[in-house]
Amino acid sequence: MSWAVGIDIGGTNVRAAQVDSTGSVGCVVAEPVDGERRGGAAFGQLIDMVTELIAKAGGEPPAGIGVGASGPVDPRRGLIKNPYTLPGAYQGCVTQRLADVFGVPVRLENDSDAAALGEAWKGAGAGAQTVVCVTVGTGVGAGVVRSGQIVRGAEGSHPEPGHHVIDPAGPLCYCGARGCVESLASGNAIVAAAVRSGLVPSGSTAADVYAAAVTLPECRWILERSHAVLALAVRNLAVLYAADVIVLAGNALGDPESVLAAARREAASYTLGPPGGVRISLSQLAGMAGCIGGAGLVFVPQDAS
Amino acid sequence: MSWAVGIDIGGTNVRAAQVDSTGSVGCVVAEPVDGERRGGAAFGQLIDMVTELIAKAGGEPPAGIGVGASGPVDPRRGLIKNPYTLPGAYQGCVTQRLADVFGVPVRLENDSDAAALGEAWKGAGAGAQTVVCVTVGTGVGAGVVRSGQIVRGAEGSHPEPGHHVIDPAGPLCYCGARGCVESLASGNAIVAAAVRSGLVPSGSTAADVYAAAVTLPECRWILERSHAVLALAVRNLAVLYAADVIVLAGNALGDPESVLAAARREAASYTLGPPGGVRISLSQLAGMAGCIGGAGLVFVPQDAS
Repeated sequence: MSWAVGIDIGGTNVRAAQVDSTGSVGCVVAEPVDGERRGGAAFGQLIDMVTELIAKAGGEPPAGIGVGASGPVDPRRGLIKNPYTLPGAYQGCVTQRLADVFGVPVRLENDSDAAALGEAWKGAGAGAQTVVCVTVGTGVGAGVVRSGQIVRGAEGSHPEPGHHVIDPAGPLCYCGARGCVESLASGNAIVAAAVRSGLVPSGSTAADVYAAAVTLPECRWILERSHAVLALAVRNLAVLYAADVIVLAGNALGDPESVLAAARREAASYTLGPPGGVRISLSQLAGMAGCIGGAGLVFVPQDAS
Repeated sequence: MSWAVGIDIGGTNVRAAQVDSTGSVGCVVAEPVDGERRGGAAFGQLIDMVTELIAKAGGEPPAGIGVGASGPVDPRRGLIKNPYTLPGAYQGCVTQRLADVFGVPVRLENDSDAAALGEAWKGAGAGAQTVVCVTVGTGVGAGVVRSGQIVRGAEGSHPEPGHHVIDPAGPLCYCGARGCVESLASGNAIVAAAVRSGLVPSGSTAADVYAAAVTLPECRWILERSHAVLALAVRNLAVLYAADVIVLAGNALGDPESVLAAARREAASYTLGPPGGVRISLSQLAGMAGCIGGAGLVFVPQDAS
């Protein structure tokens, strides 16, 4: 059966997988992002990882390579241009570089869009028409897929549903606004709020805040506030995109079932939605949405405009 | 030159116009909504108005008829099902009824979508790729057009950008939420806030509140708050759809230039948008966006899915 390489590049880790045309995952390679592999040569780590997956496939070449990368990215030109969270060896035309080395088609998208495509293709949104996938990690990424196609904005750009404002009195975000979803409910936001209140030391992670919440009610309040913001954000996204499925994913959800319940309560109050209502689910792809969606870029051709 | 009938059905008035294939408007007929024309026969008033426009065209039949109606509507089936603001003679399959009488293709859309198509086709959004049109009247309607196509949600449904929540502590809306844009910044919201504060008598209109604001600072505060909400809503829509153009329209904007300036300030602070930024404009179609967009439904075929 035809297979593709799906690559998910985050700010901390990079993961590459064999994914077949039904969306089944074979071998997976996951590593910390390392800009010095092959002496820092452009995309040297990705070349090594893909080489390894091809060897594990007995040398059978993939039908293509699909990459979801922490943005900003330019899908039309195949460019990663993210000096904020990726090293120098990860900047530039990743599609051309991998195509030169492996001689197969290569596609690039924003990691939120790749994850949303994974969920829409083979995850919690399979069979639905309009799927929004919200990934809560260091930041809050979100992608929208409609009829199998990634929803884009002007000049093919990536909309940023994670940066819509929920509370104009909230903290200032690098997006330029106060109180956007990411500034209130991301892993970084939870940590910042807990550090500001002296509940955890500087340098803590979201997991540390969740651990501290077991004994500190003030930490629980911070988490409850972030859950309420996420629930309201989910409602807004259901309203704004008339979505039939919204998928919650990411390692900073903390208590996913609690977020899910809050989001369902919020969304259930909406009276103007599509006849079937909106279904809200947790990701069913166990952290592999990005890789599966990356492969989906190969198997489900996307309009770049 | 080929022409079409564009019909704009609001809760109060109905307007029909001759519009040619370049978007130019010829004769216009505008009347209060009257469910008793032809003894209350289904869509009797529309039949009379279209008959009049055809007579004024020297009997030359239109290429088609496009209707934008105050929702809920079902564009796929051509159904108006809005018992909230339209009389009984306006309920049902308007496309079939008009097609039976005039023998030409008939299209139906939500009035916000028709207005957005008008702006994208021949108004402030002409030439842009992703256009959001926000109409502030009794309520706050909004439509999104991308590459000339109305953006839909699940089962072809109409997204409701005017009902996303800006302030969870705001007034309860019939959409089920507290503090959505409509509940804070529509004509009805302005009047309700001013009546609640005893600034204008019950039964006043948005225009009365604007008049009272000349002498009453408390009324000015209500309007300033509604302008701030609209500005934030515009920013959110720019972020959520990665729009290149956002058009502000409607008769309850009050001080359009002031709203425009506030919205531009808000949007200018967004750092993650498309390279060209977002352009925010007032409608250039002088209240005819709905009719022009209605005709646009005939001249710019829409995907109904």
